[in-house]
Amino acid sequence: MQILVLGGDGYLGWPTALHLSALGHEVAVNDNFARRGYDDEIGVESLVPIATLDERLAAWEQVGGGRIKAYVGDLCDAAFVHKMIADVRPDTIVHYGEQRAAPYSMIDQAHAVYTQTNNVVGTLNVLYAIADVDRDIHLVKLGTMGEYGTPNIDIEEGWLEVEHNGRRDRVLYPKKPGSFYHLSKVHDSHNIEFACRIWGLRATDLNQGVVYGADTEQTKLDPRLLTRFDYDGVFGTVLNRMVIQAVLGHPLTVYGNGSQTRGLINLVDTVECIRLASESPAERGEFRVFNQFTEQLSVRQIAETIAREYPGEATIEHVANPRIEQEDHYYNARHTALVDLGLRPTLLSVTLIDHLFDVVERHKDRVDPAAIMPTVRWAQTASELPRTASEFAPMK
Amino acid sequence: MQILVLGGDGYLGWPTALHLSALGHEVAVNDNFARRGYDDEIGVESLVPIATLDERLAAWEQVGGGRIKAYVGDLCDAAFVHKMIADVRPDTIVHYGEQRAAPYSMIDQAHAVYTQTNNVVGTLNVLYAIADVDRDIHLVKLGTMGEYGTPNIDIEEGWLEVEHNGRRDRVLYPKKPGSFYHLSKVHDSHNIEFACRIWGLRATDLNQGVVYGADTEQTKLDPRLLTRFDYDGVFGTVLNRMVIQAVLGHPLTVYGNGSQTRGLINLVDTVECIRLASESPAERGEFRVFNQFTEQLSVRQIAETIAREYPGEATIEHVANPRIEQEDHYYNARHTALVDLGLRPTLLSVTLIDHLFDVVERHKDRVDPAAIMPTVRWAQTASELPRTASEFAPMK
Repeated sequence: MQILVLGGDGYLGWPTALHLSALGHEVAVNDNFARRGYDDEIGVESLVPIATLDERLAAWEQVGGGRIKAYVGDLCDAAFVHKMIADVRPDTIVHYGEQRAAPYSMIDQAHAVYTQTNNVVGTLNVLYAIADVDRDIHLVKLGTMGEYGTPNIDIEEGWLEVEHNGRRDRVLYPKKPGSFYHLSKVHDSHNIEFACRIWGLRATDLNQGVVYGADTEQTKLDPRLLTRFDYDGVFGTVLNRMVIQAVLGHPLTVYGNGSQTRGLINLVDTVECIRLASESPAERGEFRVFNQFTEQLSVRQIAETIAREYPGEATIEHVANPRIEQEDHYYNARHTALVDLGLRPTLLSVTLIDHLFDVVERHKDRVDPAAIMPTVRWAQTASELPRTASEFAPMK
Repeated sequence: MQILVLGGDGYLGWPTALHLSALGHEVAVNDNFARRGYDDEIGVESLVPIATLDERLAAWEQVGGGRIKAYVGDLCDAAFVHKMIADVRPDTIVHYGEQRAAPYSMIDQAHAVYTQTNNVVGTLNVLYAIADVDRDIHLVKLGTMGEYGTPNIDIEEGWLEVEHNGRRDRVLYPKKPGSFYHLSKVHDSHNIEFACRIWGLRATDLNQGVVYGADTEQTKLDPRLLTRFDYDGVFGTVLNRMVIQAVLGHPLTVYGNGSQTRGLINLVDTVECIRLASESPAERGEFRVFNQFTEQLSVRQIAETIAREYPGEATIEHVANPRIEQEDHYYNARHTALVDLGLRPTLLSVTLIDHLFDVVERHKDRVDPAAIMPTVRWAQTASELPRTASEFAPMK
């Protein structure tokens, strides 16, 4: 199968490209290196040192993984997108090519507008290019569980059967996202569903939970194949960040009372979910949604698990929640579709946490402790916020 | 009350500004004249000749209407928006300042991207400026009934009480919009609801039906106060377009079998709805949605009504539907909130249609018959579509 991975230089895009290539698919990657640019802007770095895309691709060929072709360019450039897709003629496009951090989108007006424009326009360009080049191409698009928010009813996989005043319909599941980033994914979902309806495209929208983990079978083969590991208050996901706090002897910071519940997924399951969705494509005209996570945990439970497993001392500290989100809410989200396709979940375990402690221990001299704490508050707007990298200091 | 009307030079924005000013409110208008630019691009003109904004404002002062201040600039320019809102310090912002034609958004990739970027970014900038300047400002935002699509259940006003697996919640009404334009309004609605949630803004989202009509009490006072009247296949709304076809002796063109049902509203009710919503603002933190139309009619019923009332011969012709939309669907949309606030609907009547025939008769020498037929097909994409004004010829 010919597969094009958009955002193929990122935390998840890169291991996904390797996983698909290792399994014998013809893989091409696209990136504009925006993610590496955010590091420069915010003044942070991946905990794990990462090679350039050229070095990565050379390393993969050297370890016998095969050739992955790279297309460097911006998805907001419609002509580039059209040309790339016509050139690759993929069976499947895996689309990770978006700004993916909620706090980044909430920095100020410019970052909110950038996030929504970048994500929505990039995806529109991909949809138009598919419609132009070959409407049979299957789009596998990364969304987020954060699109749903925390409704007081069970979360289904994208669609909801409703009965209202004695009549029935199947409708898109109502969304209540928690940041301008999460909103950009809701906008994407609506645009993609429409494209399936008018052009008969086939699409799988993967509403992914919070990803944790540092490596996959392939990234471990060579140091140049390692993927990034973010721990900063803007791009670091909760579990990865807390592992670093434990190793550094800092309290594990829980936002608010920590009762917020989220779906979690291990990096190794993410790449496998992409394979499963790609190898069993949606039908022509079908807008299919899978909830891509393997277990539900509250932020407090995550902190307690890490504190318990850490060999040294680890304490938990509650800090004012920089986000505006519900605490003590109902949460029950269906996630059976990918299991039905064959996913065998890798749940959070002692071995897994131990391995993460090892990874962090190895690189802990690279950590900037000042970068860990949240710097972006949801209730604030542009004029009240730090605007330059040097001003990204921890909140009181 | 201090009211700022964004898009105050447009078909509805201009009469709204006059109506509010006539009732004693302090009114300022903003526009970037994008709507006048679309005319040049597509090669059409308003049926009714319209004065420049400067001429309009001077005429309004001369007829004793008072002074309306104008802010010329683009809502996508965040600094301009911030400055304007800080300068006006309005109690209410009425937001018409968006690209508002579904066919225009479906011309090609560039027009889809333009529509979504222009509308979404403009509204984001307004939200940020309100949050920065004064969170008490009430945003009255124009949405569209087209956001809902044609669900098989009753359409409520923005929110839906759902019961699912024995639990209940109040959720945003699920949307299934019919064009990239309609989608831009869905994106706006989600962004505004979020801004109300995190910043405690107050907003009224008006999901408006198809507007018809040529004038209001104020626009009739002086020829320089007249508002535009579009009849072309891109910007003309269905009823206005059919009135022109009748007067020209052309068949009234119905897309598909004409069973598509839509909410309709007269221009004089639109401006009154804005007054009602402005004078009874939403609460702090409230995202309030009203369905702004007064009667439901199928496209066939509209054509039959016009054909029946026209003094001469008028025939009806069905043409292939250029849109992709449901025919023979269920449609029952609630629209009681504005009536509860005091709206007394002006329903489609013989007198009203007669008056429209008069207006069109007066200007019929200005009509370009070639511009009436649809030129944009939903199933097509960029590469198959006309790109220049001269290529906007009727479809076969």
